[in-house]
Amino acid sequence: MENNYENLLKLFMEAVQTTLSAPEAAAEDPSIVPVGISNRHLHLSQTDQDLLFGEGYQMTKIKDLSQPGQYACKETVTICGPKGAIENVRILGPVRSKTQIEILAGDCFKLGAKAPARLSADLQGTPGITIIGPKGSVQTAEGLIVAQRHIHMTPEDAQRIGVADGQTVSIQVEGPRGGIYGNVAVRATKTSALECHIDNEEANAMSINSLSKIKIIK
Amino acid sequence: MENNYENLLKLFMEAVQTTLSAPEAAAEDPSIVPVGISNRHLHLSQTDQDLLFGEGYQMTKIKDLSQPGQYACKETVTICGPKGAIENVRILGPVRSKTQIEILAGDCFKLGAKAPARLSADLQGTPGITIIGPKGSVQTAEGLIVAQRHIHMTPEDAQRIGVADGQTVSIQVEGPRGGIYGNVAVRATKTSALECHIDNEEANAMSINSLSKIKIIK
Repeated sequence: MENNYENLLKLFMEAVQTTLSAPEAAAEDPSIVPVGISNRHLHLSQTDQDLLFGEGYQMTKIKDLSQPGQYACKETVTICGPKGAIENVRILGPVRSKTQIEILAGDCFKLGAKAPARLSADLQGTPGITIIGPKGSVQTAEGLIVAQRHIHMTPEDAQRIGVADGQTVSIQVEGPRGGIYGNVAVRATKTSALECHIDNEEANAMSINSLSKIKIIK
Repeated sequence: MENNYENLLKLFMEAVQTTLSAPEAAAEDPSIVPVGISNRHLHLSQTDQDLLFGEGYQMTKIKDLSQPGQYACKETVTICGPKGAIENVRILGPVRSKTQIEILAGDCFKLGAKAPARLSADLQGTPGITIIGPKGSVQTAEGLIVAQRHIHMTPEDAQRIGVADGQTVSIQVEGPRGGIYGNVAVRATKTSALECHIDNEEANAMSINSLSKIKIIK
């Protein structure tokens, strides 16, 4: 009798579990990906970090970012173009081989600089900008970009979604200000976390927040 | 002989004219419309204008806008929410029956206010904001919105394009940051000038400028 009761209880619990998981399972469309929204920020080379903050300076990590090993620093700098300056631009760590300044399209007017939409590290032919830190300033020869929208993922994610590294796709967002952004680059590496990266203006224009559903369309 | 020469010249000139006009004629797709890009701005009621600038104050027009009778004023005000203030917000004239403050989605964070996407004059249930002018300040009961994307046109334009007043359409933009914005309202009145209105963030997110081609898709 007790055994029967336990069996019934087990079956009941399994049924409850299945019911609870069902909506989640149904929602598991592999083409729906999380979104990360970036404000203007920069990545420094070791040389430029030394010039701006002094040799041997250690940045203070305040927050890990979704991409493994990447983090936001407590430190900020001012960037300055021929028309104006923008203060409190966040530094992201760790240092990279080249300094890269990622601004919003609207910042171009403020700075008086024309930043092209580029993927990270694709800096050839991009304009430079002046960076002012607490210990010095740097006039970079290049590195000023507006980040091209992109989706980080692993090769396994790419296979599951049915896309390939280097491919460009579109992303669709629902809602009263929804729409479709084209030319979103797929970046698949073994150490990536699945996330679609857009900037503040792209998020605001479609009322996207960090909880929004972003659907990849091919 | 002279007559023949004149006839030949006339035929030649007509041929040149036709050739010159041809590309323009070919480009005349009625669904391609000009674009107007708005920064944050506000429209004041006479009562609020009196409170902010003093009774009998005359605004100084600095620029006619594309919509007949509408103009930008030299005067600006500060708007202030629970989290912060935004200075130099442009006033557009003439006065309206209700004060309406049109901000960018990104301004909501700065002000600490949640402005819904609404069409002009559809203000019921929208939040208020504090406006500070040179002669006084006003706490509005409502009127804070993010402008819903819309296309002004005459009923004749609407017929030519194949849309109707009140309909919502999408707009498509080409280019490296191109895409599609959904939920764009058609507003057809006899006194409208054909123009698709989007705000700075919507323009920046797709690298749209005042010369961009905007295509209506139904």
